[in-house]
Amino acid sequence: MYTEHICLSIRCDGLPLRYAFHQLWLSVYSELSIHMYLPSHVFTVSAAAERIRFILGEEDDGPPPPQLFTELDELLAVDGQEMEWKETARWIKFEEKVEKGGERWSKPHVATLSLHSLFELKTCIEKGTILLDLEASTLPQVVELITDSQIEIGQLKAELKDQVMYTLLRKHRHQTKKSNLRSLADIGKTVSSASRLFSNQDQNGSPATTHRNLTSNSLSDFSDQPDRDQLKNKFMKKLPRDAEASNVLVGEVDFLDTPFVAFVRLQQAVMLGALTEVPVPTRFLFVLLGPKGKANSYHEIGRAIATLMSDEVFHDIAYKAKDRQDLLAGIEEFLDEVIVLPPGEWDPDIRIEPPKSLPSSDKRKNQYNAGGGGDGPQMNGDTPGHDGGQGGGGHGHVGEELMNTGKFCGGLVLDIKRKLPFFGSDFYDAIHIQSLSAILFIYLGTVTNAITFGGLLGDATENMQGVLESFLGTAVTGALFCLLAGQPLTILSSTGPVLVFERLLFNFSKDNDFDYLEFRLWIGLWSAFFCLVLVATDASFLVQYFTRFTEEGFSSLISFIFIYDAFKKMLKLAHYNPINADYNPNYVTTYDCRCMPLPDNGMLISTPVNATWASLDKKQCVKYGGELIGPACGFVPDVTLMSFILFLGTYTCSMCLKKFKFSRFFPTTVRKLISDFAIILAIVIFCGVDALVGVDTPKLIVPTEFKPTSPNRGWFVPPFGGNPWWVYLAAALPALLVTILVFMDQQITAVIVNRKEHKLKKGAGYHLDLFWVAILLIVCSFMGLPWYVAATVISIAHIDSLKMETQCSAPGEQPKFLGVREQRVTGVIVFVLTGLSVFMAPILKFIPMPVLYGVFLYMGVASLNGVQFMDRLQLLLMPAKHQPDLIYLRHVPQRRIHLFTFIQALCLALLWVLKSTVAAIIFPVMILALVAVRRAMDYIFSQHDLSYLDDVIPEKDKKKKEDEKRKKKQKKGSIDSEIDFYPYNDNVPSIKISMDIMETEPMLGNKDKTSDSEYNRIA
Amino acid sequence: MYTEHICLSIRCDGLPLRYAFHQLWLSVYSELSIHMYLPSHVFTVSAAAERIRFILGEEDDGPPPPQLFTELDELLAVDGQEMEWKETARWIKFEEKVEKGGERWSKPHVATLSLHSLFELKTCIEKGTILLDLEASTLPQVVELITDSQIEIGQLKAELKDQVMYTLLRKHRHQTKKSNLRSLADIGKTVSSASRLFSNQDQNGSPATTHRNLTSNSLSDFSDQPDRDQLKNKFMKKLPRDAEASNVLVGEVDFLDTPFVAFVRLQQAVMLGALTEVPVPTRFLFVLLGPKGKANSYHEIGRAIATLMSDEVFHDIAYKAKDRQDLLAGIEEFLDEVIVLPPGEWDPDIRIEPPKSLPSSDKRKNQYNAGGGGDGPQMNGDTPGHDGGQGGGGHGHVGEELMNTGKFCGGLVLDIKRKLPFFGSDFYDAIHIQSLSAILFIYLGTVTNAITFGGLLGDATENMQGVLESFLGTAVTGALFCLLAGQPLTILSSTGPVLVFERLLFNFSKDNDFDYLEFRLWIGLWSAFFCLVLVATDASFLVQYFTRFTEEGFSSLISFIFIYDAFKKMLKLAHYNPINADYNPNYVTTYDCRCMPLPDNGMLISTPVNATWASLDKKQCVKYGGELIGPACGFVPDVTLMSFILFLGTYTCSMCLKKFKFSRFFPTTVRKLISDFAIILAIVIFCGVDALVGVDTPKLIVPTEFKPTSPNRGWFVPPFGGNPWWVYLAAALPALLVTILVFMDQQITAVIVNRKEHKLKKGAGYHLDLFWVAILLIVCSFMGLPWYVAATVISIAHIDSLKMETQCSAPGEQPKFLGVREQRVTGVIVFVLTGLSVFMAPILKFIPMPVLYGVFLYMGVASLNGVQFMDRLQLLLMPAKHQPDLIYLRHVPQRRIHLFTFIQALCLALLWVLKSTVAAIIFPVMILALVAVRRAMDYIFSQHDLSYLDDVIPEKDKKKKEDEKRKKKQKKGSIDSEIDFYPYNDNVPSIKISMDIMETEPMLGNKDKTSDSEYNRIA
Repeated sequence: MYTEHICLSIRCDGLPLRYAFHQLWLSVYSELSIHMYLPSHVFTVSAAAERIRFILGEEDDGPPPPQLFTELDELLAVDGQEMEWKETARWIKFEEKVEKGGERWSKPHVATLSLHSLFELKTCIEKGTILLDLEASTLPQVVELITDSQIEIGQLKAELKDQVMYTLLRKHRHQTKKSNLRSLADIGKTVSSASRLFSNQDQNGSPATTHRNLTSNSLSDFSDQPDRDQLKNKFMKKLPRDAEASNVLVGEVDFLDTPFVAFVRLQQAVMLGALTEVPVPTRFLFVLLGPKGKANSYHEIGRAIATLMSDEVFHDIAYKAKDRQDLLAGIEEFLDEVIVLPPGEWDPDIRIEPPKSLPSSDKRKNQYNAGGGGDGPQMNGDTPGHDGGQGGGGHGHVGEELMNTGKFCGGLVLDIKRKLPFFGSDFYDAIHIQSLSAILFIYLGTVTNAITFGGLLGDATENMQGVLESFLGTAVTGALFCLLAGQPLTILSSTGPVLVFERLLFNFSKDNDFDYLEFRLWIGLWSAFFCLVLVATDASFLVQYFTRFTEEGFSSLISFIFIYDAFKKMLKLAHYNPINADYNPNYVTTYDCRCMPLPDNGMLISTPVNATWASLDKKQCVKYGGELIGPACGFVPDVTLMSFILFLGTYTCSMCLKKFKFSRFFPTTVRKLISDFAIILAIVIFCGVDALVGVDTPKLIVPTEFKPTSPNRGWFVPPFGGNPWWVYLAAALPALLVTILVFMDQQITAVIVNRKEHKLKKGAGYHLDLFWVAILLIVCSFMGLPWYVAATVISIAHIDSLKMETQCSAPGEQPKFLGVREQRVTGVIVFVLTGLSVFMAPILKFIPMPVLYGVFLYMGVASLNGVQFMDRLQLLLMPAKHQPDLIYLRHVPQRRIHLFTFIQALCLALLWVLKSTVAAIIFPVMILALVAVRRAMDYIFSQHDLSYLDDVIPEKDKKKKEDEKRKKKQKKGSIDSEIDFYPYNDNVPSIKISMDIMETEPMLGNKDKTSDSEYNRIA
Repeated sequence: MYTEHICLSIRCDGLPLRYAFHQLWLSVYSELSIHMYLPSHVFTVSAAAERIRFILGEEDDGPPPPQLFTELDELLAVDGQEMEWKETARWIKFEEKVEKGGERWSKPHVATLSLHSLFELKTCIEKGTILLDLEASTLPQVVELITDSQIEIGQLKAELKDQVMYTLLRKHRHQTKKSNLRSLADIGKTVSSASRLFSNQDQNGSPATTHRNLTSNSLSDFSDQPDRDQLKNKFMKKLPRDAEASNVLVGEVDFLDTPFVAFVRLQQAVMLGALTEVPVPTRFLFVLLGPKGKANSYHEIGRAIATLMSDEVFHDIAYKAKDRQDLLAGIEEFLDEVIVLPPGEWDPDIRIEPPKSLPSSDKRKNQYNAGGGGDGPQMNGDTPGHDGGQGGGGHGHVGEELMNTGKFCGGLVLDIKRKLPFFGSDFYDAIHIQSLSAILFIYLGTVTNAITFGGLLGDATENMQGVLESFLGTAVTGALFCLLAGQPLTILSSTGPVLVFERLLFNFSKDNDFDYLEFRLWIGLWSAFFCLVLVATDASFLVQYFTRFTEEGFSSLISFIFIYDAFKKMLKLAHYNPINADYNPNYVTTYDCRCMPLPDNGMLISTPVNATWASLDKKQCVKYGGELIGPACGFVPDVTLMSFILFLGTYTCSMCLKKFKFSRFFPTTVRKLISDFAIILAIVIFCGVDALVGVDTPKLIVPTEFKPTSPNRGWFVPPFGGNPWWVYLAAALPALLVTILVFMDQQITAVIVNRKEHKLKKGAGYHLDLFWVAILLIVCSFMGLPWYVAATVISIAHIDSLKMETQCSAPGEQPKFLGVREQRVTGVIVFVLTGLSVFMAPILKFIPMPVLYGVFLYMGVASLNGVQFMDRLQLLLMPAKHQPDLIYLRHVPQRRIHLFTFIQALCLALLWVLKSTVAAIIFPVMILALVAVRRAMDYIFSQHDLSYLDDVIPEKDKKKKEDEKRKKKQKKGSIDSEIDFYPYNDNVPSIKISMDIMETEPMLGNKDKTSDSEYNRIA
């Protein structure tokens, strides 16, 4: 009965829905004393909603409505001259207003409105002239049509027509346009203002004049060609090509007693001369002229309609509206969705910065399309919304890349099929300045790594493999891998466990008189064979059991090792260059270091020709068996301290420059460039500092000659002849260990590289990656080069240096992370450069090692960014009230979070200890232990908690089951929404779970609910 | 006619005002086709507003209503057990909600509501039981009364009474209370959840049960004594003692068909047992029980009423309301003031952080008290509001402290009268841990200053005044000044110009064979005399011509000098300890430095007894005329680099620790403590680093013996005998210069210290300060000690280290800067310690000088904080769109701002050049030039611009005029508001300025407007 009544009243005169209802209801109530509240479904499932559903639900055969640029022009007297339309604000998505005094655009901000102005606007739409799909091509034409329409319905006296038209056709002044006259006037004015009186700038925005000497030369330019100022406007680049304009004109005039309101939608968007700031055709026109004295109120109404026009849903409605009632329903819908801030808790003067992310308007639109009124908007984040997708379970869903095909080489074939179409774009996608920065950055990291690793390897294998082998191996494998592998963003490098293995192997060979290189060759061949078997059998599908727990644990550990190593290297450097703490400048005369013959050496050592002992330098002295005696001998001045300055300086400088992107200074492009080249800049700066101070810090020395480090070996390792035949077979045993080592190191890094957060578009290629690693194993083994696998930290650095963000977006909109520049060029060039480094020694020798250690430290710290484990570690030190509003903090009790963090930290501590001992060789195997620990945690934590803190471990059968349930739920969901739609239907099946079911199957009932809500979140 | 109609309808049934009006209007319109808009005054000057004016306007004989604590309890089934009232949110000013999953309090945030819930709430108030001033003392009593009232009016069936009462008396569970049972259940549950199903935690807040086995033992505790949990609650400290509670209970039950709504105000606030989380008596109770299925809607209504109760204006209305209509008018008023965010521009999931500052609710209240409806709220900062007061002209208003009394010593007498009452509190106000940190910080700054200045002075005067004189002078004058002066926060120190003067004076004396100390004594006496004359004639009133331009220019310059000096000292240090850039560890054997007899010295110099030339150390070698030969001689290893590490380290560490207050880690008190002791901590840390590395960096060496540096002088300078008689008179000439120097240096620092921003409560004492400076001039002159005046940077550091903030504030409210710990103790102790430093040499000698230079650098940089000039300098590098939303950017065109900055920077550059030459002596005089430049700028800039960028220079006559105008305006203003109040009165005098007047007196007209609006802002 009520609903009928309401619908009737609405269809009659388009009443403000909800309030009309209140009104009606109250009167009914007071008359009939019916003591019943209606379920509030009535409020939402209303005629307005139905109307909107109808408008938005129409088949979209045309393209979606174009983007709107909305401009608010107000009638103002400029400089006490004539009245003009002055642009005072504009919208694409957010509001930008003209600062009256500042003569500039404000920052884009959320347009805060008053309820008042919205209701006044509604009255305007209810009362004013609405002309939809008006056919007109010039402004005078439009204005004439509006005016006539108003006269026709008797809202405007015919004798005022000329005045109204005259006013509406006044010149438009845009913020970008600066009249020379004005600046001249400015100077004259300020000079004469010496009497210290306030200048003639309008203080409160109301036109200070009503003068009448209207001349016609300040009328608008009505040509349909954009004028020069419009075309020069740089703001145009913020708008898409097909954008249209909506112009809002409000002002007070002294010849009207009643407001003159019109809302016009043109049949075709047309250029109305210099009406709009930018050269886009106008589609909508809202005009409000009113009697004097309410300028502020008109201004607010203008802002209200402009805000509505920039609202995605109302914007659609405005394009599709058939009549006045459609527009009113649109306002109604807007009011329904509006967010209200209490006056005592917010200062309306504060301009609210646009939020980082916005809910999609699809939700609002779909609400109508799907036909469900729902529960109305919910405030303050009671619904996890889109955030939830990110926090819980948003990242464990491994796609078809890791499916077990069951066919021989099925995964490999799929990988090739997937990657082949991108092979061309893998080259031309690299054309960007950012690639240059990435190449330089990663190149320096790779070279440093190759040198330090080569040094250590030479030490471990008595130079059977040394720095040059390390360089050659890095260059060859890296370049080939980046050129041909499934994921060219991965950077190959030698890793710690390989080093430990080589050390053990070399010692074992020496002890047993094996030919080390030949033995190693066979191990390599066996490992490659095993890897190829793994490839052929699609074994990489196991990777999907690496959840966030495992993956973050691993990557954090590797980052810690990077950081630790950087400091370790610095301490080693300090150890080699000790500081003389007892030095006193006054005793400078007693500090010396002399070369003396060993006093207790009975034999006479031949002193070098033409030299006394005293004239020998340190090396010579040692060479000839002399002894260095004196207090200065053991010390090296300045080097250590300078190294620390360079080390910490490079790190700090990199960090600061990287963050420079978020600073306020300089234009965006400059900041972006500085940020992209942060590390290179930091290196250059501190190389400069080093050169300036001139202290002899250790420099990067690359080998300059291309020959094996050891004279006892060549570039090819013969497979037979060195060892007894059974060794070839026995090599399979250590090869098993190497296989596990390679597989784990390679694949977990691949998982990290292929993280969903990186938004990679060209897909992963786990099988193909492993295939190439195996092939390169063979190559390296034959050439006696080190073995290479994917390196986590450098790969992350590679990705970070190639991140893309949206360029052009509406003012105030945050740039969005688009993905990574996926290509093969940077990687290939990096490794080609690494190979060519042998020829670049003269340049590279200016780079001090401490600077590169600083870069290592930076890489280690930077790769910890965004790791949830680190966030949780920080939470341990934060009082609850200062913790950031993380999604899992809303849903998981803090003690559970801390327990989870504690377990993870404990695992890492154990792994760290392991890594520091000889057991390092089984380190990759221990990652499997992490997976096991994670499985065990299923017994300690609820799946709900884990879904927020980690991913849920996939299970074959479970997955199918869930899919089925999901489908079932979706069906049910659609029934539910129908229920919502017919609130009076009492016979619908109840969805509440009764206590009995709960008690027999408590977990199931709950699980259903959760996964359901999760799917809803994703859907 | 309309208004009557509206009022009538409102008085009948308390309609939603504005919408009712719309409604009426539309129906009238459609029937009668009256084509007229009513002026929108009608909307604001409504019956609701009148009602509120009546409520709030009542004479306040009682105290203001107490602070309210609002708690939202919802009916939920916990753990599938019985239904309980579970606290889900609370309010003092901002909302804190219970994170359902997280089992914790959210951060305080602005309560974003939906319009929907507000309208539903209004319906509730319209329809529900309203019991105002109910006399009851227990919860069962209250519940019984509510239920009976509902039955009486027929809204509740009598047979449901028991069930309703039973439900309302269920136990209340608060967030702080953790049942052991629950944690146990938790463990059992998670163990059994190994089947990987989701746990039983309520996912969406709706109670998952409707079970019926109600037992009576879980009923509330109704004693009027607070229970243990309540008393233990630490949240209590956020509430004032007289706080009262308002409890909101909402929930869904299955036995009701219609909602059960009640709003109760108790006659006396009473403790209703464990109803409230904290042990405060309850005053208000809002109950909403409704049929199943709308829990979410009820939740939102509960939030809406709770938000209203925490709104300052509605809170007052709720306390004073006489009937239902008053409450409805309150909601109406709230809706009128509400701020609306468009749905497409904001994500309701985002919890809005409480703003830094809030507009006072007085504005809203006064709107009614004053009787003016006004124009309705204005959005997005069109009104400068309270911000304006800060930005423009908010700081040039010098109080009675600087008035020219015209009486002999009038100012001095006033100063003494003003400060005397505070003399006691000047001592006990110091009792705070912060004072300790301030003492240590300022002490170290003072000692360092005394040493470096003493060293330079000794150099300039051939030790007639040296380090010990500097120490003694600093200690004596500083302690006396802090003990007795008008502004004990000022720190006295020796300044650059004094040093230059002494150097010139000494050279002059030497050249003319004057007795330097005696000449200096007479100059001092004359200067003191001139200063006393200035005191007696209230000359300090001239200080008010120092506007922000002058003051900031001066303090920036002094800060730059501090920074520059810190680096200069470091470079000097590096110069004394050169680094050997050519050092190569390999040639260590060739680096030495030997003492040799000068080869060309014909005379045989007696070598020291028992020593060869080679065994002499550096000093001895030089002493005996030897020569140091060898490549190592000129260099000092490590010292320079270590010094730079200490210097930059101390600075960076101080900065970071100072900012630690804003970090998220550790509880507030710990962070505050670390921040307060930041500099001391940094010094200790880097003294530790220095000790650890052990390099012989230059240390702080204080004199250890108490005797004049020069043996040629004593502690008393005899006034006669050293120079001819005419010198005593001639000394008056240089004394004039000294007087200007002292007066300017002293007073401009005093102005900076007494800045309005520092919120000093005990008043300034410019005359008294100058008096003591004069007296101390005499003392120092007689004792042959340096002269002292107020030091800008150290004084600012002193104030910064004594800043106070509010301790207890509602969650989410920003701590407010309360003022400075104004007392005499810290200053006195600092200077006593400085005097005692002579005995603390053994401790102080561990402090390396570079660490102290780092502190200097910190002081220089820190004192630039918050200086508008620096902000404007930064603007030069910022693209317009990245500039912060500063008030003057809204009102002054950017090019004018840049011009202002440019002029200021140019002045400072000139002063800098001046300062670097011998002309430094007239430096203080040049500050007067700054004032002149500022006066000249009146001809370049409009007063409007200057009022935002600087202060307006006060003028005697002008001030009076303005006062008059102000009074006139106020009168007029009240007329205006009357006009607003009677919107239909057409005969009111127009306030718009017609064009004619504008053209003859364009500036005056405008000025009136501006100053008017400014006064309004202040008023």
